[in-house]
Amino acid sequence: MVVSKTRSAQKLELIPTNEGGRSFASPPKGLQTAITPNELFYIRNHWKGAPEIAMASYRLAVDGEVDLPLHLTYEEIRAMPARRFQVTFECCGNGPVPEYWAKQTRSVMEKVSGHGIMGNAEWAGVSLAQVLDKAGLKPSAVSVVFTGADHGPDEVVGDPSEVTYERSLPVEKAMHPDTLLAYEMNGEELPPLHGYPLRLVVPGWYGMCSVKWLVGIHVLDHEFDGFYQTERYRVMNGPDADTFYTYLTRMKVKSIITGPSIGEAIPTGTYVVAGAAWSGEDDVVKVDVSTDGGKTWGQAHLLPRAGYSWYRWEYPWEVLSAGGYVLMSRATNARGETQPMEFPNKWDGLGYGNNMVFAHAVEVRDA
Amino acid sequence: MVVSKTRSAQKLELIPTNEGGRSFASPPKGLQTAITPNELFYIRNHWKGAPEIAMASYRLAVDGEVDLPLHLTYEEIRAMPARRFQVTFECCGNGPVPEYWAKQTRSVMEKVSGHGIMGNAEWAGVSLAQVLDKAGLKPSAVSVVFTGADHGPDEVVGDPSEVTYERSLPVEKAMHPDTLLAYEMNGEELPPLHGYPLRLVVPGWYGMCSVKWLVGIHVLDHEFDGFYQTERYRVMNGPDADTFYTYLTRMKVKSIITGPSIGEAIPTGTYVVAGAAWSGEDDVVKVDVSTDGGKTWGQAHLLPRAGYSWYRWEYPWEVLSAGGYVLMSRATNARGETQPMEFPNKWDGLGYGNNMVFAHAVEVRDA
Repeated sequence: MVVSKTRSAQKLELIPTNEGGRSFASPPKGLQTAITPNELFYIRNHWKGAPEIAMASYRLAVDGEVDLPLHLTYEEIRAMPARRFQVTFECCGNGPVPEYWAKQTRSVMEKVSGHGIMGNAEWAGVSLAQVLDKAGLKPSAVSVVFTGADHGPDEVVGDPSEVTYERSLPVEKAMHPDTLLAYEMNGEELPPLHGYPLRLVVPGWYGMCSVKWLVGIHVLDHEFDGFYQTERYRVMNGPDADTFYTYLTRMKVKSIITGPSIGEAIPTGTYVVAGAAWSGEDDVVKVDVSTDGGKTWGQAHLLPRAGYSWYRWEYPWEVLSAGGYVLMSRATNARGETQPMEFPNKWDGLGYGNNMVFAHAVEVRDA
Repeated sequence: MVVSKTRSAQKLELIPTNEGGRSFASPPKGLQTAITPNELFYIRNHWKGAPEIAMASYRLAVDGEVDLPLHLTYEEIRAMPARRFQVTFECCGNGPVPEYWAKQTRSVMEKVSGHGIMGNAEWAGVSLAQVLDKAGLKPSAVSVVFTGADHGPDEVVGDPSEVTYERSLPVEKAMHPDTLLAYEMNGEELPPLHGYPLRLVVPGWYGMCSVKWLVGIHVLDHEFDGFYQTERYRVMNGPDADTFYTYLTRMKVKSIITGPSIGEAIPTGTYVVAGAAWSGEDDVVKVDVSTDGGKTWGQAHLLPRAGYSWYRWEYPWEVLSAGGYVLMSRATNARGETQPMEFPNKWDGLGYGNNMVFAHAVEVRDA
């Protein structure tokens, strides 16, 4: 077969976002479709690679404030009734760092130039509620802790003492029928770096809640205070270090422009600007688009979504003159919450939960 | 503003499909979004340009088998309650002509290399049923004839005698609340070439049913036998000229691949093949995709649709070797009907209603 070599297309592949090999973002073009393929789905892990799990001896422990502690094999979980739907994930550190604020950002933070620490996939698994019902939650149950098989020194503090990745959910969210113990991603067995054999999928909540390589479920009669629950994934509400923190759970209302990509040259004429919008467990009801850096706004077509997928949106644009343009998108959810024009919690320098309206510079050329 | 001139992007614009300036198709990239912008929406008219309509004297006549004949002004129609939803249009002559069959195709037929005689837009207008209720259909009503302001010698027979574009609907479809008298397309006043001031929008039926430049609605006590109702838009059921014809109404189950475009070079690696699927008033329940010319098939992700929009679908593809590939897509509707592998009605040489599985050749290059 003769193939011309005169022009080579740019390969789509994950982009490393730190030097430790722990985390990778989708390339900008990887965000242009509703389904993110597994090979282009972001990876945000606390330690490099996937922990080794011996499947012959693998058991998922369910214990604590339950009537009947369980030790379930992978096969027992696979034999339970399956649920399958799309869920969009976003890392709460997703998004480029605004310039005014980059200086104070700790060097170990993800280096993200786009919005690729997010993606949408179809997940299959069993309802966590079904497993918890099998064990029987005691009335004393307050929070449910999920333990991953991954552990090591924390990437930020560099403390050589080991920590294990553990996060908790309140009982209400843990018992929601759509909170999954997932074993399949886009029709394939869960890939190792995405949590094989089993990961939590917590629809509408930031990605760090969906614990990978799940080995234990512990029901507590009090709030969980583990390291990754209380020392990370929180934002300062004011400029003082001792200010009260807000802990991130639900993904804030947010939107991104996916087409054209940043830096992509598009022709004068008609072009359909496209993007995605999402808002935790809430519906997005409106996306406004500006093609003049926020001076004027028009309403985008909001397309329907599957399950807990992001919404995709489109905005036909007639652009008659070549030049540089600054595009913006601004989503509003069913509660009436709208993206802010500036980063809302800049005090802690970590950039968590940044749902600001982003400037998206593109170049238009004469066709 | 300094703009680099080193590389120019290809302008998206309509492609003429005949020499008479009557009809234009969307470019292949114009089909890559769910909403087709007005400027890229196909135009399939019987005569060049739009008929002149003097708005000061414009009246929509509603007469025939009704209790109260009406003559409605544009303002009276605009003052009625509006409905707004997406509807996908397809010309029943859409699709490339298979080679084995091109020789016998009449030269006046549309020259279509892609699938661009279709598009999806959000339409706004009033329920035709509301207007017919105002007039009051008599029990004798059988069919409802829609008269456009466009007329001239028929494009195929070249007969200098004038014909007017008229089509009818059975009472049941005319009275469906979603059959619209539309005055708005994608948020804009209906453009002249799309039927300003008023056009019919018949969801799920081929485009020729949605009469443009509507001036008259005539209710008959018998089936309508006008030229464009009985001499066109039909397919022969067998090889003999006197064979019984099937008249086309509902769009057949069909799918197309929109990304990559035909001839587009894509890189080795992960690529999300994308397309559209639709089936008259029925739901599409499945789209299968082949990347090896129909030898093996896998199931695509079918995305939810808005209103009567086409379904969009996506199929993540891992392609490891450079070379030429033949992609195919095959939709199945809720009745269990699936696209055929060959053109089903090749006898009349006009290619109407071709919903076969198309071969979509693409080139994969080493990244």
